[in-house]
Amino acid sequence: MQVLRGMVDILPAEARRWQWIEAVFRETASRFGYGEIRTPLLEHAELYERSVGDTTDIVQKEMYVFDDRGGRTVALRPEGTAGVVRAFVEHKLYGRETLPLKLFYMGPMFRYERPQSGRQRQFHQFGVEALGSDDPFLDAEIISLAWFFLQSIGLDTVELHLGSIGCPGCRLRYRERLIRHLLPHRDELCEDCRRRLDTNPLRILDCKIDGDKPFVRSAPTILDDLCDDCKTHFTQVQTALDALGVPYTIDPHLARGLDYYTKTVFEFIDTRIGAKSTVLAGGRYNGLVKELGGPDLPGIGFAAGVERLMLLLEKKAVPSGAAAAFDVVVSGFGTGQDVAWKLLFALREAGVRAEWSFDQKKLKAVLRDADRAGARYVVLVGDDETVRGEVTLKDLKSGEQTTFSQETLVERLKTLLS
Amino acid sequence: MQVLRGMVDILPAEARRWQWIEAVFRETASRFGYGEIRTPLLEHAELYERSVGDTTDIVQKEMYVFDDRGGRTVALRPEGTAGVVRAFVEHKLYGRETLPLKLFYMGPMFRYERPQSGRQRQFHQFGVEALGSDDPFLDAEIISLAWFFLQSIGLDTVELHLGSIGCPGCRLRYRERLIRHLLPHRDELCEDCRRRLDTNPLRILDCKIDGDKPFVRSAPTILDDLCDDCKTHFTQVQTALDALGVPYTIDPHLARGLDYYTKTVFEFIDTRIGAKSTVLAGGRYNGLVKELGGPDLPGIGFAAGVERLMLLLEKKAVPSGAAAAFDVVVSGFGTGQDVAWKLLFALREAGVRAEWSFDQKKLKAVLRDADRAGARYVVLVGDDETVRGEVTLKDLKSGEQTTFSQETLVERLKTLLS
Repeated sequence: MQVLRGMVDILPAEARRWQWIEAVFRETASRFGYGEIRTPLLEHAELYERSVGDTTDIVQKEMYVFDDRGGRTVALRPEGTAGVVRAFVEHKLYGRETLPLKLFYMGPMFRYERPQSGRQRQFHQFGVEALGSDDPFLDAEIISLAWFFLQSIGLDTVELHLGSIGCPGCRLRYRERLIRHLLPHRDELCEDCRRRLDTNPLRILDCKIDGDKPFVRSAPTILDDLCDDCKTHFTQVQTALDALGVPYTIDPHLARGLDYYTKTVFEFIDTRIGAKSTVLAGGRYNGLVKELGGPDLPGIGFAAGVERLMLLLEKKAVPSGAAAAFDVVVSGFGTGQDVAWKLLFALREAGVRAEWSFDQKKLKAVLRDADRAGARYVVLVGDDETVRGEVTLKDLKSGEQTTFSQETLVERLKTLLS
Repeated sequence: MQVLRGMVDILPAEARRWQWIEAVFRETASRFGYGEIRTPLLEHAELYERSVGDTTDIVQKEMYVFDDRGGRTVALRPEGTAGVVRAFVEHKLYGRETLPLKLFYMGPMFRYERPQSGRQRQFHQFGVEALGSDDPFLDAEIISLAWFFLQSIGLDTVELHLGSIGCPGCRLRYRERLIRHLLPHRDELCEDCRRRLDTNPLRILDCKIDGDKPFVRSAPTILDDLCDDCKTHFTQVQTALDALGVPYTIDPHLARGLDYYTKTVFEFIDTRIGAKSTVLAGGRYNGLVKELGGPDLPGIGFAAGVERLMLLLEKKAVPSGAAAAFDVVVSGFGTGQDVAWKLLFALREAGVRAEWSFDQKKLKAVLRDADRAGARYVVLVGDDETVRGEVTLKDLKSGEQTTFSQETLVERLKTLLS
C-alpha cells in the first residue's frame, strides 16, 4: 500500500515546521483583525465553474470532480476564495457583521497536476479575504499583511509586484487598443494567441511562447487606460503602502489568470530561484459576491502556497524540527515500577518532557535507547530505591549518577533542564 | 449556491473555539511525547478495504469513493488509523525511529451518513497511534492521555469503559462458547443476528434490536476466555491506570466494531445525554501493521470526534468566541489620514488590537460603528491634530475625550488596555 502519486506524508520533524509557520500566519492575520473561517473541502462543482470559471484549466483539467452517493456533482476545492464567498452569501454575513468582514483560512486544496518540487496534488494554502469595502486602504492593509507575514518567517528576498487591471470599463477600452496594436503582428503569434486575439487578448501578455516577443513587450499597458476612479484607487493604494515603507515594483503587465479580478492585483515573487516563482498572489474581485448570488459588494484577498514557502525556507535557518522529543527517560525495575510510573506523570504534569522506557528492557538497553533518542537524563527506580523512597538520576552527558529522595525529583529536574 | 448537505461552515466565533480545543489536544499529546503526523486526505480505496474491512458499513455504504483522472480508485479518508499505519510501513519508520513510535493527528474525515446533530459528512477527529510495542504501560498511557485531555477541556462527566477482546486464539474459544449459549435462543433473534450467529456472533452483543434481551445480556463474556498472556496484559493495564488514579468501569461486553482490534478496547462515554454517546474510543490492533504489508508489529490508538466534543462543551463555559475582534479604532480625516494610518500599524506592532475605519466615514458613523463592534477606544487624527503633532483619544465607555502628543499614543493605549 502506497501513498497516492502527487501526495505526501508529513512526518513529525517536518510537521513541527508546519505548526510553526501556521502559528506565525494565524498570529499575523489575527493582529490585523482577520478571523478564521473554515469551509468544507467538498463543494458543489458548480461553485467553481461559476467563480474560477468553467473555461479555465483548473476547472476543466485539474479539479477532482465526482458524483457522490446522492448523485450530486461535487468537487474537492481547488482554491479557497469561492468557498469563503459562498459562505459570506449563504449566511448573509453582509447583514450580520461590520463591513469589511475580514477573514483568513488555512488548509488543503486539490488539483490534479503533474507533480513536481513544491507542487503536489494535495497542497496547502494560507489565505485572507476582506469583503464589503472598496477602500484603497483595505488593499494596502491586505498587501502589507502579506508583506509582514513573509518578513516574519524570514523570506526577505521576495519582491512585491503591483498592478491594476481596472474595472470592466477600463478593460474594454484597453482590449480594443491592444487588439489594434497586435493585429499587424497576427502572423507572428502562436496558434493559441491568434485565437486569443479574438477571445481574450489580455492572455497574450502571459503567453509562454509569445509573452517575451518585442512587439508584445512594447504593447500598450492597461495602466494608460484606467478610468479616473481606478486611477485614483491605484494611486491611493501606493500612497498607503509608501507610508508603511512597504517596497514594491509597478508591473504594468501583471494580469492575474482568473476572470473575476478587478482593480488591484499583486504578486510576491521569490528572486533567488532561477525561474520566476510566485509565492503569494492576490487581488480585488469586486464582481464575485454578486456572481455567486449575493449583493453587489466588493472583495479582495490573497493566497499563499505553503509547500512553496516551506521549500524556500529550507535554505534558511528556521525553528529546528530535529530536536529530541523528550529530555528524560523514566524506568522502573522490580517493585520500583509503580513508583517510577507515577513519577513519570508527575514530571509531565510539571512540564518536563519525560518518556517511559517501554517494553521492560534491561538497564543497559534503557540507557542505550535513551541516549540514541537524544535524552539527557535517565530516572531509575529499582528495589533498593523503592525501600528507601529514593530515585537514581543518571546524566547521560557526564555519566554522573546520583541518588536522592523521590520527593525532590521534579524540582531537581526542572532546575537542571531550565 | 449552497453548502453541501451534511457539511457546515465554521464561522470566526466558532473557529476560535476550535482553535482552543485543538491547542489543548496538541499540547496534551506533545506533553505525552506524541509527535504530529499529517497524511493525505485521499488514499487508494484499497487501503480502507484492507484495514477497516471490505464488509463493513463504512467501506460499503459510507465511504466517498471515485476514480481520479488517472483511473485510480481513490477514497476520501473515513478514519485516520489506516493512513498513519500505511505511512509507518511505507517509510519504514519501524527501522528509523525508537519504538514505540508515538504519533498524533487531527483533521477532517468523510462519511456519507444521514446528517444529524454532532454527525456531519465532513467531520473531524483528534487521534493518536503508538506503534511497535505491546507493553501494557503503553495502553495505560494512551488511555490516560485521553482522560487528561477530556479533563483539560472540562468534560468531567465522561465515563471510561474498559475491556479486552483478547487475541485471535481467545476469540476463537469465546466464539464457540457464545454460539453454544445463543443457539437455544436462535428463534428469538432478529434476522440479522440469526445470520451473525454463523458469521460473526460477537456482533450480536452490539445489536440494537437483540443486544438488550435477557439471554444476550446473560451471555458469557470474553473475559472468562482470555488466555494467560491476554489476562496478564489486561490486569497490568488496570494496575497502571489505578496508579494514576484514572477511574474506569470494566465492561465485559465492549466489542469495538472493527475487525483489527486485539486485547485492550476502551470507550469514553458521556453520561449526561439520554442516549449513550461515545466521545472517544480506541484499542489495540496488533495485526494491522502486518496486514498492511509491514513487519509483525503491534499498535494501539484512539480517535475522538471533535463535533461531538464541541456539542457537549456547548453546555459548559469555554473560552468565549464572542469577544470583540479589536479594542481600538483608528481614523484619519483630511491631512490626518496618513499619520493615522501609520499609527494604526504602530499600535498593531505593539500588540494592540487596532482596526482602521474603512470607507472614509464621517466622525459620527466612525464612533457608532466602533461602539457596535465592541471597541473601547477611538483614535482620531484630523487637520488640527496633524498641525500640532497630536491625536485625540475618545473613550467610548466614559465618553471622555483627550488630546495629546502622537508619540505617547502607543504607550498610553497599552497601559489603558492592560
